[in-house]
This record gives sequence, structure tokens and C-alpha cells, in this order.
Amino acid sequence: MGRSRTYSWEDPAVLAEAAQSMSGIDFLRAFRDGRLPGPPVGAAMETVLEEVEPGHAVFSLVPGEEHYNPIGSVHGGVLATLLDSAAGCAVQSTLELGTGYTTLDLSIKYLRAVTTETGKIRAIGTVRHRGRRTALAEAELYDADDRLLAHATSSCLIIPPRP
Amino acid sequence: MGRSRTYSWEDPAVLAEAAQSMSGIDFLRAFRDGRLPGPPVGAAMETVLEEVEPGHAVFSLVPGEEHYNPIGSVHGGVLATLLDSAAGCAVQSTLELGTGYTTLDLSIKYLRAVTTETGKIRAIGTVRHRGRRTALAEAELYDADDRLLAHATSSCLIIPPRP
Amino acid sequence: MGRSRTYSWEDPAVLAEAAQSMSGIDFLRAFRDGRLPGPPVGAAMETVLEEVEPGHAVFSLVPGEEHYNPIGSVHGGVLATLLDSAAGCAVQSTLELGTGYTTLDLSIKYLRAVTTETGKIRAIGTVRHRGRRTALAEAELYDADDRLLAHATSSCLIIPPRP
Amino acid sequence: MGRSRTYSWEDPAVLAEAAQSMSGIDFLRAFRDGRLPGPPVGAAMETVLEEVEPGHAVFSLVPGEEHYNPIGSVHGGVLATLLDSAAGCAVQSTLELGTGYTTLDLSIKYLRAVTTETGKIRAIGTVRHRGRRTALAEAELYDADDRLLAHATSSCLIIPPRP
Repeated sequence: MGRSRTYSWEDPAVLAEAAQSMSGIDFLRAFRDGRLPGPPVGAAMETVLEEVEPGHAVFSLVPGEEHYNPIGSVHGGVLATLLDSAAGCAVQSTLELGTGYTTLDLSIKYLRAVTTETGKIRAIGTVRHRGRRTALAEAELYDADDRLLAHATSSCLIIPPRP
Repeated sequence: MGRSRTYSWEDPAVLAEAAQSMSGIDFLRAFRDGRLPGPPVGAAMETVLEEVEPGHAVFSLVPGEEHYNPIGSVHGGVLATLLDSAAGCAVQSTLELGTGYTTLDLSIKYLRAVTTETGKIRAIGTVRHRGRRTALAEAELYDADDRLLAHATSSCLIIPPRP
Repeated sequence: MGRSRTYSWEDPAVLAEAAQSMSGIDFLRAFRDGRLPGPPVGAAMETVLEEVEPGHAVFSLVPGEEHYNPIGSVHGGVLATLLDSAAGCAVQSTLELGTGYTTLDLSIKYLRAVTTETGKIRAIGTVRHRGRRTALAEAELYDADDRLLAHATSSCLIIPPRP
Repeated sequence: MGRSRTYSWEDPAVLAEAAQSMSGIDFLRAFRDGRLPGPPVGAAMETVLEEVEPGHAVFSLVPGEEHYNPIGSVHGGVLATLLDSAAGCAVQSTLELGTGYTTLDLSIKYLRAVTTETGKIRAIGTVRHRGRRTALAEAELYDADDRLLAHATSSCLIIPPRP
């Protein structure tokens, strides 16, 4: 028997434009509170921004069958999406108006398989270093019992405003 | 104006069961040729297994607006899904019947931003080392002009058949 | 003007043999307390095991001119040695008698340059996950003012005793 | 019975100064050909720059007992030193006069144990991407039979000349 799912999103150009007119933390709070539309990938992957404070961001996901790989568990790319979101937004939350960023790398360790039985999972992103040119964030993936499911680090390049 | 997309998939338990009754390469060829249903994550993310030979696997994606992050480009997690698929299936293609695997890590370097203007992208996975207990795969992401967009390595743990 | 340094070490076979006859924590405590000779690499690189408790190990180094790369700071490989030692020994400290380990990977982020002016630096290794087949350790490099200089993760394969 | 080794080096400030007055490739060729003193870490660790061309650098090492960890093989930090040197110098070889670099990260996969029986090992560094702001190098460690012993990637930040 087949299953299906429909999701919808808003024009991402609106969001990208808003991102350039606000500080990182103001932008992310507007997105968290629904004052801005979420990004399309969030609708596609069902990730939710739950918390954001300067240097800290939490995304959650309730794993569904639609996230499965061919060998019976949630695909590593879905977990990567959650971890990358948490790490990237933790860094973005430290950026003043006019400053941008781009992710240089994402290194993930998968520690436990995630299935639909795992229930809601949460990726907690934390800035570990905020330099002038680069930032390092750590992201940890937990289940409801606070067991560590995966661990990631991510470096971002800080892009200063054009003079 | 909102946009939407609907995708459908088959019961992933069917696929996971097939994975245990075939060698890695036979399983992946059946999946590539449509003799087995694709995994749900492939439908959700729009990734396509294009090629598979022992030690080698290629996945492609045509980036759409639905893959966008909040800052105007394809989300790193979408690229991670493609790279993880290519690396993991390259390893899986070397496994005899009864042998399983699990991904230990995925380390990605993002080199160029990907947008809907990039057009079709391809992740090429190659096994660099196949030991008795672990395997190392490399995955490279290219655009249609063969420019390197991202680079990844992934280690897998080989799970021998139960005695 | 040339400078020189002489270091000496004991037969490493003695140490490797001792490692197989003791639990990880007993072995590391004997090495910390000088009841076993240190490993040759410690003499060559001037690293010192300062603390070890189950799941936790600290190595220190006072950077000297002899650790310099061609561009005027301590070579990344020297810092890698310190971080790898801290991560590996944190894992080793969790191993029962007869269980071995091997390091699968080491991923380092370099955050601040280290010079002879930095003074004594310390790598703190912590086990983040101890599974049956693998373990994940984190290692953080700090200066005397507790500024984070580098961050690393390392996965180890646990090698169970022969039946 | 104890063993000992003495090594000597030149003032690293001389080398660091030379690095700023030459293009990357000219600097590295002078160092390879002995027209400049090698860096202290090379003397301490016994690494040798064997080849350098734009985007390519090879370092070698003959593993000795002095490189051993406590568990009977060459310490991962020694291999990291070789891989970091190869990757970093491959990037440095692409830099014009006045442009500097700093290593952001080093991610190593250890594939086979290295011992004194392995004989001479060689780390081959190759630039995979050279952007305006960052570069990615790959480094592969081989034994005399061209078996892959370890694999690394390293990202560097390019530091443009002061205006």
C-alpha cells in the first residue's frame, strides 16, 4: 500500500530578503514565532525551530516513515539536516545586522539508529567559538530520554558587511 | 503565494526485508532498476540512484525551491542526504549476502553554494578502503560542468552475519 | 645559531605488554604516576599525562621553538598529538582487562594560533558515548586562561577479548 | 635499556620571515632544496619534504620506535603531523607573494596501523578546491606498496595581503 504526504511553503526569496534586513537573532525569533514564513526545507523535512537565544538554537523532528533509508531507519541526511540547522542558526543568532555567514563544513558522528519508535528528537546547537572570521558550533542530537543519538561540529565563515 | 508538493512512498519494511535477502550489489541494482520500490527518503528529498557498481554509486538531484534554507540557497542537509546516500550505497555495494553496515560518520566540506540555477547535481560515491570491520567511502558533489561543489568522507562499520 | 634537544625513552614493547595485562584505567594510572615508563612519543613531543579518571584524561604541553612549523607557530600536528592522546586515553580508561581499542578518526578544528608565548596548554579528553562496538570522545585544548584553542572529536573501535 | 635521540634546528623566525618575502611555491622549493633551513617540527618529528609543485606536496617519514604510542604502534599524532604538513604545503604552494594562510581543520581517518615494520611512509597532499577565501586539500598516507594507511582532508583560510 502506498502512502503520501503533501507540504507547502512560501517563496523563499521573501525570507532571504528579510534575513538581510535584520540582525541574526531578530530574524530567527521572527521565524520561530511565525512572524516570518519558515524555510521550504523545514516544510519538506518537517523540522521545527523550537528555541533560539544568542549562541543557541534547538530544532526538533518527529521521525516518520517518510524519513526512512533503504535499510530500515531514519536516513543520515535527515539527521544531518536537523544538526546543520541547529549549528547554523546558533551561529546566525550571533550576527549583527548586515553580517552574513556560510557553512564551511559539517562533521557528524552517528551514535544510535533513529526509527519511528524513537519519538521526537531534538538537535541542540551551541556556539563554541565566535571569531572575527570564523565560528565553530557544536550540535547534539537527543531523544526524549536525553540519550545522545548523534554529535556534530560545524564551522562557518563570517561574511562582514560590504564597506 | 504558497507552493506545495505531494510525494508518495511504499512501506519501507518491504525494502528493509529485501535488503537482508540479497547481496548489496543485487539489492541496489534492483532498487536502481525499479524492481524494488525506492526508499521513502528518496521520494521526500527527490534523490535518484543513477548508477551502482561494486564500490561505486551515483545519486542525483535537481534542486528546487523546496530544498531552500532561510538564506537563499539549498540547505546543507539536502546536500548531506545526497552525499550520505552515495557514500553509504558505495559501501553497501561491496557487501555479501547476510552482511550489514551502519554509518559511523559523515564529514562534509561545502565548497560552493547550490541554488535552483545550478541545475542537476550528482554525488559520486567511491569506496577508498574496505577492511574487515570498517570501510571508508569518499563522495564528491558535482554540477553539470563538473565543478566540485562539496566533498565528503564517510566511515561505515561492517556488521558480519550472525554465526 | 643552531639549537638542539636530546630525549630518551624506554623499549615501547614493555609498555605495550603492560597495556594488555591491566585494565585501561589501571594502566593509565601507572603511566601517570611513573610506575610504568611513558610512551616514546611523549618524550619526543614533550606531552605529559596529567590526569586520568574513567572517561576523562588530560595531557599538557609547554610549547617550545622545537614545535614550530615554517610559518611561525606551533605545528598543527603537535596539537593533534595532544588532542589524540587526550581523546584516546579517555576511551582507554573505560576498557576492562583484555579489551583493546584502535582510533578510527580524529577531526580537529583549529581556533587560535599557539606560540611559545601561549604558555602551557592542556587537552581535556572526555568520553561522550561508550557503545559496545565504538566510543566517541571529545577533546578540547585550552590555554592557562581557559580560552579554547582547538576542538577535536575522535571515534574509537572497541576490540573485545578473543573468546 | 634506555634509548635516546638528539636533534637540532635553526631559529624559526628566520624561516617565518622568509615565508613572507616569497611566493608559496618559491618558499617551499627553497625549503625542499635545503636553501632554507627546515622547520623545527620537521627535525623533532623526522618528516621530510620530498616533492612540491603548485597544488601538490609530498612529505615522508621512516617510522621509528620514538614515534610509538603506549599500545605498540606509531602514534596518531605523528601521522597527523605528516598529513597536516602535506595538506598545508599543498595549499601554501598556490599562494602568491604576500598572501598567507591558516589551517582551519584537519579530519583524519586511520585505516591501518603503522609500525617500524611498515618502513617509509609518504603523505601526498593535493589541493581539491582553491577559492578566494578558503581552500580544501586532501592528503593520503601510503606505504611503500602503495597501500592506503590513512586519509585526511584539511580546509585552510586564505589571508589576503593587507591593502
